Amino acid sequence: MLNTVIIGASGYTGAELAKMVSRHPQLLLRGLYVSAASVDAGKLLSDLHGQLKGIVDLPLLPLTDIKATAASADIVLLATAHEVSHDIAAAFLTAGCQVFDLSGAFRVKADDFYRQYYGFEHQYSEWLESAVYGLAEWNADAIHQAQLIAVPGCYPTASQLALKPLVVAELLDPQQWPVINAVSGVSGAGRKASMINSFCEVSLQAYGLFTHRHQPEIAHHLNCDVIFTPHLGNFKRGILATITAKLAVGVTVKDVTAAMESAYLQTTDQHAVRLLGNKTVQLDDVVGSCFCDIGWQVQGEHIILTAAIDNLLKGASSQAMQCINIRNGFPQLTALV
Amino acid sequence: MLNTVIIGASGYTGAELAKMVSRHPQLLLRGLYVSAASVDAGKLLSDLHGQLKGIVDLPLLPLTDIKATAASADIVLLATAHEVSHDIAAAFLTAGCQVFDLSGAFRVKADDFYRQYYGFEHQYSEWLESAVYGLAEWNADAIHQAQLIAVPGCYPTASQLALKPLVVAELLDPQQWPVINAVSGVSGAGRKASMINSFCEVSLQAYGLFTHRHQPEIAHHLNCDVIFTPHLGNFKRGILATITAKLAVGVTVKDVTAAMESAYLQTTDQHAVRLLGNKTVQLDDVVGSCFCDIGWQVQGEHIILTAAIDNLLKGASSQAMQCINIRNGFPQLTALV
Amino acid sequence: MLNTVIIGASGYTGAELAKMVSRHPQLLLRGLYVSAASVDAGKLLSDLHGQLKGIVDLPLLPLTDIKATAASADIVLLATAHEVSHDIAAAFLTAGCQVFDLSGAFRVKADDFYRQYYGFEHQYSEWLESAVYGLAEWNADAIHQAQLIAVPGCYPTASQLALKPLVVAELLDPQQWPVINAVSGVSGAGRKASMINSFCEVSLQAYGLFTHRHQPEIAHHLNCDVIFTPHLGNFKRGILATITAKLAVGVTVKDVTAAMESAYLQTTDQHAVRLLGNKTVQLDDVVGSCFCDIGWQVQGEHIILTAAIDNLLKGASSQAMQCINIRNGFPQLTALV
Amino acid sequence: MLNTVIIGASGYTGAELAKMVSRHPQLLLRGLYVSAASVDAGKLLSDLHGQLKGIVDLPLLPLTDIKATAASADIVLLATAHEVSHDIAAAFLTAGCQVFDLSGAFRVKADDFYRQYYGFEHQYSEWLESAVYGLAEWNADAIHQAQLIAVPGCYPTASQLALKPLVVAELLDPQQWPVINAVSGVSGAGRKASMINSFCEVSLQAYGLFTHRHQPEIAHHLNCDVIFTPHLGNFKRGILATITAKLAVGVTVKDVTAAMESAYLQTTDQHAVRLLGNKTVQLDDVVGSCFCDIGWQVQGEHIILTAAIDNLLKGASSQAMQCINIRNGFPQLTALV
Repeated sequence: MLNTVIIGASGYTGAELAKMVSRHPQLLLRGLYVSAASVDAGKLLSDLHGQLKGIVDLPLLPLTDIKATAASADIVLLATAHEVSHDIAAAFLTAGCQVFDLSGAFRVKADDFYRQYYGFEHQYSEWLESAVYGLAEWNADAIHQAQLIAVPGCYPTASQLALKPLVVAELLDPQQWPVINAVSGVSGAGRKASMINSFCEVSLQAYGLFTHRHQPEIAHHLNCDVIFTPHLGNFKRGILATITAKLAVGVTVKDVTAAMESAYLQTTDQHAVRLLGNKTVQLDDVVGSCFCDIGWQVQGEHIILTAAIDNLLKGASSQAMQCINIRNGFPQLTALV
Repeated sequence: MLNTVIIGASGYTGAELAKMVSRHPQLLLRGLYVSAASVDAGKLLSDLHGQLKGIVDLPLLPLTDIKATAASADIVLLATAHEVSHDIAAAFLTAGCQVFDLSGAFRVKADDFYRQYYGFEHQYSEWLESAVYGLAEWNADAIHQAQLIAVPGCYPTASQLALKPLVVAELLDPQQWPVINAVSGVSGAGRKASMINSFCEVSLQAYGLFTHRHQPEIAHHLNCDVIFTPHLGNFKRGILATITAKLAVGVTVKDVTAAMESAYLQTTDQHAVRLLGNKTVQLDDVVGSCFCDIGWQVQGEHIILTAAIDNLLKGASSQAMQCINIRNGFPQLTALV
Repeated sequence: MLNTVIIGASGYTGAELAKMVSRHPQLLLRGLYVSAASVDAGKLLSDLHGQLKGIVDLPLLPLTDIKATAASADIVLLATAHEVSHDIAAAFLTAGCQVFDLSGAFRVKADDFYRQYYGFEHQYSEWLESAVYGLAEWNADAIHQAQLIAVPGCYPTASQLALKPLVVAELLDPQQWPVINAVSGVSGAGRKASMINSFCEVSLQAYGLFTHRHQPEIAHHLNCDVIFTPHLGNFKRGILATITAKLAVGVTVKDVTAAMESAYLQTTDQHAVRLLGNKTVQLDDVVGSCFCDIGWQVQGEHIILTAAIDNLLKGASSQAMQCINIRNGFPQLTALV
Repeated sequence: MLNTVIIGASGYTGAELAKMVSRHPQLLLRGLYVSAASVDAGKLLSDLHGQLKGIVDLPLLPLTDIKATAASADIVLLATAHEVSHDIAAAFLTAGCQVFDLSGAFRVKADDFYRQYYGFEHQYSEWLESAVYGLAEWNADAIHQAQLIAVPGCYPTASQLALKPLVVAELLDPQQWPVINAVSGVSGAGRKASMINSFCEVSLQAYGLFTHRHQPEIAHHLNCDVIFTPHLGNFKRGILATITAKLAVGVTVKDVTAAMESAYLQTTDQHAVRLLGNKTVQLDDVVGSCFCDIGWQVQGEHIILTAAIDNLLKGASSQAMQCINIRNGFPQLTALV
């Protein structure tokens, strides 16, 4: 049994992680932590997330002694704010823990990226260098050997899982940027009170036009420029991405299908991508599940892809669990289906 | 044209009032005010409520000089917090304005009521004494002559409009308290950021069991004890009240229908109650409208009544406008249909 | 491994059952069946319920030879219409199968009940006589020995789990009927196209006033008259019941709490009731789970209880699975948490 | 007063039209009609649309004698299916009525269009030729003189109002097709029972990829190829369109803003487009209103435009009313604000 702790356990992704870890046959949930200053310290996790009553009734401990916490843990899940992950990951890594970070703090190795998009200077360039990007279906070999896994963001997961087979197979026209429109449920903004998340103020809308930090994350890891427009939807969970792109000359739907199948149907271990071909991708089919559904249609030179995930699961917590499973040699979807 | 000002114009009821006043042929919208300390002072109302762009583009003025504001106004609408209404109403009244208060500050003339349910000592017992309760369909004569009208709360409006005909006609068993269950949309909590209103946290639930301040308001004005259980629903607007009561011995559905028709079908002026008899009352039929729909069914000694209103309209702003119309001799539903 | 078949597998409860059976370590999902005339015969279950792709990809077989199907099965789950369950249960029972019926066909042993409330004459009085009502937390001993288990309806489950401890302990005033108001998600009406379920027509409303067939089911099994008013809510899943009752003379909140704890905290096996005392019961805490949350508050002679379940789970499929577990000696919540 | 009749009055757009006509100071609502075979014939419109009780309580008459109906009417609103509009418009036109058709039957003058996209051969090429496309802000002069106005579809209205200023000013790169992603509320599918509209089945999804009939309507009237991907959203009303396009070389945000202002701020008569510049366009700001909100952002060579309308109002009924107003010399937004 691997001792597992969750830092930042009070939020939506933390609660999902706690449920998964407690259900996992090879993991032992050793502790749930929040910032020492948090008003939630001392409460039960199930006081904040009533659905966990009788399932995970552990208290939220204040994270006051990182060394002691690190000493108790084989696996550390960071469901913390970007700055917090940045600040505390090294202590766990130095202590020898496996660290799975759900924040953006170790995702992109590019100059100025953190200053420009996250508002801080990155202080841990070596750890950043060693971090493996936890896009489970694509980086399994590297994840299996890594100590620090940077779990991808929610929009980037849906976008890359759909586009990466085409980019890798060089099926896209390099002259024209794919257009990614994605709609996310409100839980993507985290568990907090704000006017923008206030029930009566939530209304379908595009936001962060041309400026969202997930655009460079997608472009960097795809190695392909994209236009990315996120939207806030009037629902709690899930992301639907609709991607429009121009194909390279002569590419047909058969080539696309072959690329998809080559990427996702060659594996022996069950993973979390389901190929729907020309069937309709529906958001509710993935809400509450670890899966990413992908569909596509081609007409002439253009392709439209749709991809759906649960933003808190495949877009965060279940992908982190997939990475834990890959890292430790368990079947990928253990505790997830 | 009567000069009309709205104090506390930034909230949901304020915005509805602004729309109605600007549409009213005999009213002139002279000013929108917020507390001098409000972060919204100086903004356009339509910056906060985008649906008003091109309809009401007036600025939110800081209320710094009540006397000057009062001097500019024939009619004052107070869409302010209870304590604020309590504090400022007298200044407008002394200046001779008609005051329509949407808060609870002048609704109930009972010892200890404000201390117990609102947490403050009432300082204006004479104005409280003179205030008329603005339940439009029942108090039209008094409203017509009043200077201070205390517009009823949202739950009390739905509850009383359904029950009052039965109480007045003495059709209920006095030994058994009517049970009022009501579900309200989230806008009932006002325009603000809080965890309880946070989109992902909103979930159907009962709240304020036995302790909600609208219970004594209902009981006081009905002159009948009731059990009142409010619920938060996962929708923006509207209230549905389901009321179960025991009839007095020998009372039949015909007696109930006669009481309803006597209460609501004898008037010459169109008002805001629609009688549905045994047809189904549906919340969405009243959302966005000034109407209260009422239905009823009898079996043996028991009656179930259902009543639906828009909590921001018949439960607040349109009822205030009905009172303005009654007070000034305009057709009751002017600017409302 | 017990061979398990699901009849009527195409609907919402059938899909939930298929997921649970396939996840259960002691059950083998041997077949999914629909009526031979169904347009869904031959499709994959996951074609109808996309969330099951990769989880349950079995076909929906036409039920053409009940004997052969019965011969292949140890356990039969009937997720069929009331009339269909009534017609086919005997064939499975005669063949020796354990039958768990989610319909109303075997729930109430009362003269005229089926004629009055279900519109048919019951033809199987002996099986009806032998059927055990599958309210898991209350009838475990009888369920353990039964061959035919009539799984309770969704409203009756929530209502009885909250009220039964008080009725059994004789804490209620027998002169006054408890008032049950309950709001159900739209899935309670089943998977079909109709105007009442049409997205734009769904609106919070009471329905079936004084006439819903779940009223006599509740009254019969509680042995207590009740007034039951169901409501349709604007959400997919879940039921929240708010119950108002008068206590017998001298009964206090301590007595109520003792009765609740006596009913639900004396067991060694984990079951599906969670006691919340005076904390708020929230619908979303139980949606997607097998639990029933119960809370209560007392003031003077009155009590208000709230109870929440997922109508498709504790109100149907997970309660059926609890019954399977009890019947066969597995831990009650196997495959459910 | 102009006598006005509505054909196909039972649906969502019909109900909206009835409300507007009854509120219009220069129109007299002479009759509501449905197909003679309709189950709704003989009912009150307010039986179907409860919100109209007390506002429009007229019966739905069977359309049995078109000539007589035409003789009674100055203005005919066709809120009928495409085939029905196609079949009956000529009779009203020949009788001299002004005809405002909300269907697609007279929108596009292109060979094979009706065969390919609507499944019927157009039989009235002369009326089709004479029809004016009722995009109110763009075709006012032609509308003013037309007898037959083909009111645009919902998606085309939002798409064209945003793109047309750029196309007309030649600001777009002609080599790259604009990508239009739009999400519509469920009411866009009309008032009827179907699995796709069934409450529990509605889930955010793209549909009609590359094949929706509104793509050629948009491309034809814009005179610009576009990729158009409609989506079904989990809400009742409204459309949000997000449009991504490449600008011609050297074009800046100032050029875009100038084109928008030239198109929409030069008029004396108030119309239904509100320009938001770089402010966020939110769906709920237009739901229930006649307005189209448009926003835009530019980065490098790319532009993202967002446009929001109420699909039943600016996307259907209020645009029809705008056309009636323009045709008859009334202020454009009469009965609409």
